[in-house]
Amino acid sequence: MKKRIPKATVGRLPLYLRCLTDLPPTQTTVSSEQLADMARVNAAKVRKDLSYMGSYGTRGVGYEAEHLRFQISRELGLTRDWRVAIVGVGNLGSALAGYAGFGERGFEIVGLFDAAPDRIGQQVNGLVIESVAGLEEAVAEREVAIGIVTAPAAFAQQAADGLVAGGVRSILNFAPTVLRVPPEVEVRRVDLSMELQILSYYLKSEF
Amino acid sequence: MKKRIPKATVGRLPLYLRCLTDLPPTQTTVSSEQLADMARVNAAKVRKDLSYMGSYGTRGVGYEAEHLRFQISRELGLTRDWRVAIVGVGNLGSALAGYAGFGERGFEIVGLFDAAPDRIGQQVNGLVIESVAGLEEAVAEREVAIGIVTAPAAFAQQAADGLVAGGVRSILNFAPTVLRVPPEVEVRRVDLSMELQILSYYLKSEF
Repeated sequence: MKKRIPKATVGRLPLYLRCLTDLPPTQTTVSSEQLADMARVNAAKVRKDLSYMGSYGTRGVGYEAEHLRFQISRELGLTRDWRVAIVGVGNLGSALAGYAGFGERGFEIVGLFDAAPDRIGQQVNGLVIESVAGLEEAVAEREVAIGIVTAPAAFAQQAADGLVAGGVRSILNFAPTVLRVPPEVEVRRVDLSMELQILSYYLKSEF
Repeated sequence: MKKRIPKATVGRLPLYLRCLTDLPPTQTTVSSEQLADMARVNAAKVRKDLSYMGSYGTRGVGYEAEHLRFQISRELGLTRDWRVAIVGVGNLGSALAGYAGFGERGFEIVGLFDAAPDRIGQQVNGLVIESVAGLEEAVAEREVAIGIVTAPAAFAQQAADGLVAGGVRSILNFAPTVLRVPPEVEVRRVDLSMELQILSYYLKSEF
């Protein structure tokens, strides 16, 4: 079995991938220093992170950008598609349902679920919103791999339970609450105010 | 002048703050190991990060949770309020305008701006959407510190230009594009698909 890459490195791989995507199309190689500068990580850490994938670059030249992009994509499992369901289709759920970046990166949204009777049956980005009553069955049937919880906090645990019962093993949680899930389920919590808090630090140093 | 904290540490402070907030209300102290476990960072790094704020904890006891929360909040500049403007009030902009977590953490939204004539004049969460034509002036007048760009990619640069001209020095960019700004302006780009890419890694290892 392949050895696992440290969690912190996994967390930075999408960042490197984005930096590589941001390079001018004419640039075919990239140094660890440039990647470090773009990703705001130090260059030694970039080299260490990339070495886990067997990428070492060439002294004085750097990394071949296209190949590195492929290696990271493969490592992250982005060379195949994953099916995604969204539970809670308010403004944020609707925004995510219409987020072009997901489809482009191989995340196919195959189900939108809500508890509010007046939302059920409405369309968002070509998908009809379904009742959460059928969540477990729909998720199992459509082989959904990733669930996105954008339900209100009070309803988030129920949403997660339905996803897990339907076989989902990865959850992205936007609700401001800690979800209780079995140990084999990976949950990542997104707190949109964390980015503002980081900006606040730099403002504070200035004013 | 106070010495700056490394960028990577600043990036983790909001995470520690969230972990501290997630502690049961009855728990008054926390060890670096527990914080490390919650934040998925190693314990030595937690201790190092907190040492930049002069927090060292007590051997066998850990850190006093409430005091640590205060220290991090003060370090991040969260003990004062910051005014925020949102440019681009589609689904995502509307979701952010209604995001309760911002207000609770001292980020007050004082302006919503859009370019679409049919959006201007509509209300979202008690605020009337204004025309981007008045962005620079409004931002300057209301002393906005942070701009959130949720405009479409093609319009994001124009949105950023207006914010910067109005005096904004921190921008949170949700548009899938690199913004050109003067060096004194801090931009953080949020790519919602990065979190899905991290989940994909763990799914890939499993299937």
